Amino acid sequence: MGQKVEREPAFESISVAEFFYRNRQMAGFGNSTQAVYSTVRELVENSLDSCEEALRSPLVDITISSLDPEVCHVSVSDNGLGVPVEYAPEAFTRVLYGSKYRQRQKRGAFGLGVTMAVLYGQVTTDLPVVVHTQTEEDGGTEFTLLIDVKNNAPVVKATRRLRRGSAGTTVSLSIKGDTKRARERIIEYLRLTSVSTPYARISLSINGEKESFGGVSQELPRNPIETKPHPRSADLELLRRLSSDAMSRGLREWLVDSFQKVGEKTAARLLEFISLDSRQPVSSLTREQLTVLAGGLRKFDDFEGPDPRSLNPVGKGQFLLGVQSTFSTTATQYAARVPSEWDGHAFIVEAVLATGDDFPCSDLPTVFRFANRVPLLYDASEDVLTRALRKVNWSRYSLRSSPPAAIFVNLSSTRVPFKAAGKQSIDAVPSIEAEVVALYRDLGRKLRKVVNRGQRATRVSRKKKEFSKSFRLLAESSANLAECEVPEYEGMIQNLFEVDEDV
Amino acid sequence: MGQKVEREPAFESISVAEFFYRNRQMAGFGNSTQAVYSTVRELVENSLDSCEEALRSPLVDITISSLDPEVCHVSVSDNGLGVPVEYAPEAFTRVLYGSKYRQRQKRGAFGLGVTMAVLYGQVTTDLPVVVHTQTEEDGGTEFTLLIDVKNNAPVVKATRRLRRGSAGTTVSLSIKGDTKRARERIIEYLRLTSVSTPYARISLSINGEKESFGGVSQELPRNPIETKPHPRSADLELLRRLSSDAMSRGLREWLVDSFQKVGEKTAARLLEFISLDSRQPVSSLTREQLTVLAGGLRKFDDFEGPDPRSLNPVGKGQFLLGVQSTFSTTATQYAARVPSEWDGHAFIVEAVLATGDDFPCSDLPTVFRFANRVPLLYDASEDVLTRALRKVNWSRYSLRSSPPAAIFVNLSSTRVPFKAAGKQSIDAVPSIEAEVVALYRDLGRKLRKVVNRGQRATRVSRKKKEFSKSFRLLAESSANLAECEVPEYEGMIQNLFEVDEDV
Repeated sequence: MGQKVEREPAFESISVAEFFYRNRQMAGFGNSTQAVYSTVRELVENSLDSCEEALRSPLVDITISSLDPEVCHVSVSDNGLGVPVEYAPEAFTRVLYGSKYRQRQKRGAFGLGVTMAVLYGQVTTDLPVVVHTQTEEDGGTEFTLLIDVKNNAPVVKATRRLRRGSAGTTVSLSIKGDTKRARERIIEYLRLTSVSTPYARISLSINGEKESFGGVSQELPRNPIETKPHPRSADLELLRRLSSDAMSRGLREWLVDSFQKVGEKTAARLLEFISLDSRQPVSSLTREQLTVLAGGLRKFDDFEGPDPRSLNPVGKGQFLLGVQSTFSTTATQYAARVPSEWDGHAFIVEAVLATGDDFPCSDLPTVFRFANRVPLLYDASEDVLTRALRKVNWSRYSLRSSPPAAIFVNLSSTRVPFKAAGKQSIDAVPSIEAEVVALYRDLGRKLRKVVNRGQRATRVSRKKKEFSKSFRLLAESSANLAECEVPEYEGMIQNLFEVDEDV
Repeated sequence: MGQKVEREPAFESISVAEFFYRNRQMAGFGNSTQAVYSTVRELVENSLDSCEEALRSPLVDITISSLDPEVCHVSVSDNGLGVPVEYAPEAFTRVLYGSKYRQRQKRGAFGLGVTMAVLYGQVTTDLPVVVHTQTEEDGGTEFTLLIDVKNNAPVVKATRRLRRGSAGTTVSLSIKGDTKRARERIIEYLRLTSVSTPYARISLSINGEKESFGGVSQELPRNPIETKPHPRSADLELLRRLSSDAMSRGLREWLVDSFQKVGEKTAARLLEFISLDSRQPVSSLTREQLTVLAGGLRKFDDFEGPDPRSLNPVGKGQFLLGVQSTFSTTATQYAARVPSEWDGHAFIVEAVLATGDDFPCSDLPTVFRFANRVPLLYDASEDVLTRALRKVNWSRYSLRSSPPAAIFVNLSSTRVPFKAAGKQSIDAVPSIEAEVVALYRDLGRKLRKVVNRGQRATRVSRKKKEFSKSFRLLAESSANLAECEVPEYEGMIQNLFEVDEDV
């Protein structure tokens, strides 16, 4: 064979920054057009999260300018909470570092997106990111940062104190990217953001050309509350973590404290169901008992669903307003399902079905997807929100007799099962899919009602016209025969048809 | 507003194991059926890589048994290199730890898959993985391992010396999963593996039911050679890494040593092109000069393509053998494109077009996708190999007149741009897409030729029959007139049509 066999393969550990550096496409940075779009998207999402946490109407300014045909400069600023000085360098340059994960809905989830933008900028232009951030407590600081990719750590090139008018964050970076080609996607993204977040005022300047989005509502959403984990979301890893702090506490008490929706009685019934003693100290649980407990938490069917107050759906008024102020529509219908769960994570699906000539003609409604209010523009075809569309028999819902239709559908969840780190499409989790199919059918029935009502109205008005004509002839000839004046009959016909309509 | 504003958000860093624990679906472990399939797949891929590196015909044994309806035990053993004792615990339980990345084709790429299987097993059954591994140098050791998810580190529960007959690795773990539902996918995966790896002998036992795959060829592929990076793959991060070791060496010499396909002359021309001095010490490069160099490496159009010897395509003989020994086919055609590159990474696409009643009837050929010989079964619709199929006008290639057709297409690359860590689909990189479209057209033309040849053969045989009939009548009546015997004319007709066929 003549080839050398390597008896001793060399092994190595790579940092997560290195992993995503090598596999940028997984995080939405596969090419320079997508990279510009993803950069804007990640920065805007961070800004909106931060403003909402501060309970302020978001003001987000985006400036994009081409430095040369291949490189552009992106700057996004907001009036959010700001990042405390001691966390700032890592928050912007360390992969998988971010605000602490909490059991409640948020746009950002991984502590990955903004750092990916900084990383992409660095490897394509060698320029650092410049971050200015100011909280209400501190006076504001500007950081100039690079990433040590091999070690997934920040490299602070410079810092300076710099006070601005109010709290908020501005992130500026340069990346390789064609502004012209990314422009359309960015504008689509911001238009759709104003559908799901109509209270945010977003301004965009691309090479001096200005556009603004949203700001049509003053009503801020309430912050979703943080909940304990739902018992059905507990796998053995979570159980081990929760039990390691429990010391000598009794099982029942510990269950009540550790999980949402578990009261004294529920805990007692569960423990009876799996034959464990309520007073057994958690610290004495054997591996086998822990496994029995994990199985019991999944199989026990007496838990209430997870607390939907951890969620923050768009809601009927805002969602309709968002669609109507962004698209020209002839009719809009809102529907939402009751809160549900996947693997113990709360979720709600809601949607607006709109008709109008803004949408393309098709056998199926056009779908605009949102996850926790974030528009998803790529990788639609295997997304659960698209798959569900194909499972509905739309021919039943008079779609052909209506103007072109579109569905704006939003999944709110404490955890969205994205198929990849780029957060472009949602995995086909069966319980989510079932709810979305049911939601689409609800909307289909509403559409059919509208279309049928329209068709009936057309029929009635035609009937009225014919009737009116005959009645006039009858009235005239009768009056002629009786040699008297033609009576007033229009009101009579009107009354007649109103009676008919009420039936 | 009455809601508490959190002025001081808490930040945290999570380990990459924690990230994939929370987002299992990204790595192909979204539900328990997929998890069983992914476990088998990741273990088999590791085994095949290891056997090929050892230049041995792979023998892989897979045993799956249901412990109860919800839990199954998976064990995969091979005759590969084995993992040296000092690396073994981390190799199986640490995310992003694996054999050192080299510039050459391999199935495994991330050091993620097997650890994900162990992690999934641990969080669903709380049972450790048991690994036995033996290299030719050491005597064999059995490890019992768990993962410290929070710290992405191994927990060694037990080790013992245990010598076996020969080198190799056996991995055994228990996971939550429904064997029955995963069975079909696993069998499909192994059948397709035997198409792309016909020299591997794989045996599968599911609850005692046995099946075996492949082993139809003795011809082992040569190991692809390790190459230096291609200059067009150099971004600023790579340049910085390469230059940091270069000390006071001159630019030209450093370029020649650092990259493939850069000789003295090419380096000199490149440096002239970007106006840098050949003798400038690398250590004195300014940030601006490094940026100029990075731009130059991309724009300079005088580099040869990357070295295809780092690749290991299936090849005509093996690929045809693989398809023919696995499916019942009426005709098979092989085509391959010349080596090409995406972002400086070498790649080759090759495919077999097969017709036969094993494949479904459709307007488009059915596609079976492979990346570095690994069959891809999920998320087909946005894969570049599927997208390319829709860009070809198949109606031009007589598809309707042929039996149902299927394409087995394999992308070999030193780096496959997977869309997600689960390695189920390939990103639509334009240069890859263009090559795949061209490959499909090549196959289409070959198919048309076969179909046309078939149709022509039918036409010719009909013509021959008619001609033969007339000729016989003519010969008979002429013989009658001449009052002599009917001459032998069959041979004459045969000759006549052979002449015709040669034209």
